[in-house]
Amino acid sequence: MTAIEKSLTPHFLSSRVQALELTPDGVNLLDQTALPGKVQYVLIQTAQQMAQAIETMLVRGAPAIGIAGAYGMILSARQGLDLQLTLDDLRKQIHQDAERLAQTRPTAVNLFWALNAMRTIVDSHFDSPAALLNALTEKARQIHQEDIEACQKIGEYGATLIPKSAGILTHCNAGALATGGYGTALGVVRSAFAKDPSIHVFADETRPRLQGARLTTWELVEDGIPVTLVTDNMSGSLMQHHKVDVAIVGADRITANGDTANKIGTYNLALIAYAHKVPFYVAAPLSTIDLSMDNGSLIPIETRQNEEISTINGELICADEVDYYNPAFDVTPAQYITGIITEKGIALPPYRESLAKLFKT
Amino acid sequence: MTAIEKSLTPHFLSSRVQALELTPDGVNLLDQTALPGKVQYVLIQTAQQMAQAIETMLVRGAPAIGIAGAYGMILSARQGLDLQLTLDDLRKQIHQDAERLAQTRPTAVNLFWALNAMRTIVDSHFDSPAALLNALTEKARQIHQEDIEACQKIGEYGATLIPKSAGILTHCNAGALATGGYGTALGVVRSAFAKDPSIHVFADETRPRLQGARLTTWELVEDGIPVTLVTDNMSGSLMQHHKVDVAIVGADRITANGDTANKIGTYNLALIAYAHKVPFYVAAPLSTIDLSMDNGSLIPIETRQNEEISTINGELICADEVDYYNPAFDVTPAQYITGIITEKGIALPPYRESLAKLFKT
Repeated sequence: MTAIEKSLTPHFLSSRVQALELTPDGVNLLDQTALPGKVQYVLIQTAQQMAQAIETMLVRGAPAIGIAGAYGMILSARQGLDLQLTLDDLRKQIHQDAERLAQTRPTAVNLFWALNAMRTIVDSHFDSPAALLNALTEKARQIHQEDIEACQKIGEYGATLIPKSAGILTHCNAGALATGGYGTALGVVRSAFAKDPSIHVFADETRPRLQGARLTTWELVEDGIPVTLVTDNMSGSLMQHHKVDVAIVGADRITANGDTANKIGTYNLALIAYAHKVPFYVAAPLSTIDLSMDNGSLIPIETRQNEEISTINGELICADEVDYYNPAFDVTPAQYITGIITEKGIALPPYRESLAKLFKT
Repeated sequence: MTAIEKSLTPHFLSSRVQALELTPDGVNLLDQTALPGKVQYVLIQTAQQMAQAIETMLVRGAPAIGIAGAYGMILSARQGLDLQLTLDDLRKQIHQDAERLAQTRPTAVNLFWALNAMRTIVDSHFDSPAALLNALTEKARQIHQEDIEACQKIGEYGATLIPKSAGILTHCNAGALATGGYGTALGVVRSAFAKDPSIHVFADETRPRLQGARLTTWELVEDGIPVTLVTDNMSGSLMQHHKVDVAIVGADRITANGDTANKIGTYNLALIAYAHKVPFYVAAPLSTIDLSMDNGSLIPIETRQNEEISTINGELICADEVDYYNPAFDVTPAQYITGIITEKGIALPPYRESLAKLFKT
């Protein structure tokens, strides 16, 4: 690990965009399936509702679904208190709900990381159900707050890698919407933009769900950062015409050797960048790094419904009688990754050593 | 040029799909903007209508727009005869209309090749306007018929390159719809399938206009050839999982050194195939090869409207206030092309020599 040791500047751009917020009534989720057409919030009041919101991608993005999972366990505890469960029964219910939350999406490790952090609280000693709820609430708020701070540090470290007036290509949405509120890849963009407003973002539209078009352009326009929308298959043309100086993406799971699962198409982009000698960075908090998993071939890859590919806005865009292949993620081998930007610094190859060191500092 | 010299089998699959047909009333175009939802034909009766049909992509695909351009000049001649123009005035009108047809789309060279072949007829000696019309009709029918035969030979040559039970990835639509009626890349698929029904096609959906989803899946299903639809950004995942044995695409213009302009995303696919050591073939008739142009950097690349990217089915899919980049084509450098399959055989690198030889045999 060669962390770029520089004093982090205290000023960074914050985002106007917030994906989720804990309130006394429940969790307000910004409905990411309705953007950019409608900016609407959905009040989630039970762990079951939260599980469905994660499955249907009202909330998405690895760090954000970690926070959403933690908040889901608070909702479970609140439900238990309403039912006046005993402490033992409350623990049982919360564990059951945690299991349900864990069944939603398999690839992003942040969800399991956050649920496990909350489970540790559930199994600690408390005098009353209310005390357990308070401790869970404190822990979940801490997870959320630490994610924002981690992303801000990722932004500051990452900004040191961005050349003057850079063209930055990103894939999917690794922004405020995907995290506690600042973004990983877009956190780097925010920090870089605060120092150099002449940078420019190119956003892959990111088929099939169009998170780049629907979410990244919206989020960047909200924050006044200039962005050009492209289809996923234009990255080669862009780089051939020297419009891209650096590519940055988020991550759903990074294994011990540096292999990185991220939104489908990330691997394509990494290969295109590699062929053009354009640096390709992954930006992610430590909660995305899964040192317990040796390499990317072991990462469970979620397969989603065929309709994501065969229809757009409910209209069939292909012949009947075709087959579909719809993995939600792909795995980029570590060899194509220039560096992994974390809140503890920038890990460089060989990743098996540099990533392990991050956890010891 | 190392043509694979083998006796071509006399049996090949023909396609049920026809993009355009000359009739006494005009030219029937299968409206490719309405597929796969509606199979509807549009009767084109003037050269001006044909120019608009090419611009709006009712008819598309390099060989098909060459044929459409030639037919457009017949329509011009028919209009002139209806107006009882003198032979001189008729020639003048046809040349003007040819100029209009040439202004439609800049990248595919087949259009200019076909218009020039027809212009040579216009400038030949005739005794009457009717004789000129007859000669133009004969020439255009010959261009159409020779395209079908060229594609069938491309299919036969190309089929020799397809391994048993191969997975074949293609981009955009280089099929019967894009040609006189058999296809270039999909001509290879048809010929291979006739010999080995265990092959399988993967069709890139091909954003922004979705020709792979809308046209290729429809055309293959019509002919009973199994096809799996994928988004453009899944080719890396497919190849990583060893599902693709060969990639084949069509071409809009191939320059003397082998550089190839084709639908946007072709270059991405070539780089992905190259990284996986998957053979990447271009299938095209000689009419697509432009020996007068030295290399791909000289090919004029059409830029199309932003709405192709920003809207789907009329709905905005991104924030307002974004910029767009919408080149309709990209250029794949010759170094990433394993072979160029033509009706005269398969050209291999170095292409400057092998392509030139094709025109001498």
